[in-house]
Amino acid sequence: MIKTDILIIGAGPVGMFAVFEAGLLKLHCHLIDALAQPGGQCSEIYPKKPIYDIPGYPEVLAGELIDNLAEQIKPFEPGYTLGERAETIEKLEDGTFLVTTNKGTEHNAPVIFIAGGLGSFEPRKPPIPGIANYEDNGVEYIIRDPEVYRDKRVVIAGGGDSALDWSIFLADVASEVSLVHRRNEFRGALDSVEKVAELAKLGKINMITDAEVKEIHGNGKVESLGIKHKTDGDFVKETDHFIPLFGLSPKLGPIGDWGLEIVKNAIVVNNALDYQTNIPGVFAIGDVNTYPGKLKLILCGFHEATIAVQYAYNIINPGKRYVMKYTTVNGVTGFDGETKKAEAAVVKSIG
Amino acid sequence: MIKTDILIIGAGPVGMFAVFEAGLLKLHCHLIDALAQPGGQCSEIYPKKPIYDIPGYPEVLAGELIDNLAEQIKPFEPGYTLGERAETIEKLEDGTFLVTTNKGTEHNAPVIFIAGGLGSFEPRKPPIPGIANYEDNGVEYIIRDPEVYRDKRVVIAGGGDSALDWSIFLADVASEVSLVHRRNEFRGALDSVEKVAELAKLGKINMITDAEVKEIHGNGKVESLGIKHKTDGDFVKETDHFIPLFGLSPKLGPIGDWGLEIVKNAIVVNNALDYQTNIPGVFAIGDVNTYPGKLKLILCGFHEATIAVQYAYNIINPGKRYVMKYTTVNGVTGFDGETKKAEAAVVKSIG
Repeated sequence: MIKTDILIIGAGPVGMFAVFEAGLLKLHCHLIDALAQPGGQCSEIYPKKPIYDIPGYPEVLAGELIDNLAEQIKPFEPGYTLGERAETIEKLEDGTFLVTTNKGTEHNAPVIFIAGGLGSFEPRKPPIPGIANYEDNGVEYIIRDPEVYRDKRVVIAGGGDSALDWSIFLADVASEVSLVHRRNEFRGALDSVEKVAELAKLGKINMITDAEVKEIHGNGKVESLGIKHKTDGDFVKETDHFIPLFGLSPKLGPIGDWGLEIVKNAIVVNNALDYQTNIPGVFAIGDVNTYPGKLKLILCGFHEATIAVQYAYNIINPGKRYVMKYTTVNGVTGFDGETKKAEAAVVKSIG
Repeated sequence: MIKTDILIIGAGPVGMFAVFEAGLLKLHCHLIDALAQPGGQCSEIYPKKPIYDIPGYPEVLAGELIDNLAEQIKPFEPGYTLGERAETIEKLEDGTFLVTTNKGTEHNAPVIFIAGGLGSFEPRKPPIPGIANYEDNGVEYIIRDPEVYRDKRVVIAGGGDSALDWSIFLADVASEVSLVHRRNEFRGALDSVEKVAELAKLGKINMITDAEVKEIHGNGKVESLGIKHKTDGDFVKETDHFIPLFGLSPKLGPIGDWGLEIVKNAIVVNNALDYQTNIPGVFAIGDVNTYPGKLKLILCGFHEATIAVQYAYNIINPGKRYVMKYTTVNGVTGFDGETKKAEAAVVKSIG
């Protein structure tokens, strides 16, 4: 069982920054995220897109912001449970919480921060009869390990950046890559579209446009797909893998059943004080929360995290008073004892 | 008379960032500050000190942060009234406010943001009888134009960075620089202390330590100072200028008399909603405000500014609804019509 001071559900920018503010108060944090890496949407959906409204950054790529936050929180040694979704919460007799993931990993903490953003991102699944039976048996919605496809036949479906980028990548790995899209126009970065066109010309990607996968055939695992072409009629395509890449859609997920007060898919918090939810000890920060006048902006989440941490301190250290110190004056001391600090003034006699 | 949408009193980092968020909503801003340049304390007191708790910056010099904010708000063309202190506020018949500075400059706006930080920084004045009579007649607490001292005799008093740095600078400008300090130890950056020691050895700075200026003599302007030495007794030093540099101390100043609800030198705001004060149309953001759980952190001021701007929009555009757009999706369009925006996805057919 993983034990920590503040268990943060959601490792996006707001959850990450909470680690920093907690660290200043000598509180340890552990983060759970359904995605395979920290950064939330910034890493998964738009790492190369610029953000213009982070204060002090006229422009920063979402991926850069995450790299900088990772660097900023490093002194406070956050723990991570990645690629797992927080599933259940239980209040123990000692007043602490037990949070268990879909893979059974158990976490124990006196304070929970829900920093879940818009929720966990679930792949959009095409409405093909019986597709669920083939999941992990030839049908994958997310590519976790490209080596799985080495020397196999692969059919990718989709018309956006993911479909384009993975087609390019797997062209060098798989024995055959087919890209199925219901139009013959693709929407993506110019580079990617041009690269796919080039690989198609070289015969390294097999383009099947104006077409949709309608059926999956196979005995326990994918063996072939029934494809419907707009004008040429139906045909069967043999393959080892079918990878539908139709984007991710956010879902609040199991957190919705934790007894939290929820309005319009967001968790109600007390913004007049501490960003705590209706369950004492459970706070919600960032895009996942709601209150009068709420703005779903990263910079607002940074503030919410900072305030919430001060109240978490009181729960974890009852009766103890913390006096905030300015980092410019006192520096930042990591859990390894190392301090980053402004150069001190010297006191010296002259003459 | 200067007219604007939001008149911001205080051009520190929080007041500056308010310009950005207002600009996204097509609101124009004008800033008033008692200091000669934007940036507040970050520029005036510690431009070369690192800050560690700006989200996304593992470390940033205060001066750099201000430069970056200036760059970020540039598209929204803020106006500035610098080197003047907001003195009086008056509500006009049309419901807008008239704010007048100590130099008589008039500003008119429907919404006021007070982003005054710890207040305006007033120089600490030594308790020398009659010193007020010599102010601007040979006694200066702030050096605005070093050329004033060319080929003059100057006595600087103080033992910190300001006194050290100006002694170094004026050693090349003035005909004679004396540095008076009541101890013989100085507290400052190592570089500065060493440089002053070197210039003292070369006879370019005349060190008078263990001594204090106790009297000012002169007919309408400074002609000489009465100096009391700890062990050697009193003596008279002829000089053209006396520059006491004993630091700046923050004062809420005239804003304290505007009828705002004030608790412990800070303005009470409604943090549950809009950061508005007890005077409708007047908001307070950043270190100058207070509410339950308030933290005097720059990052909190950024959030407060952002929220306050949304409510200011409603006052300025009654009945009009603004739907927030993400800068990552829609970019930032400056008042000159120029847009910074993420590269759009292309839509292109392949094959």
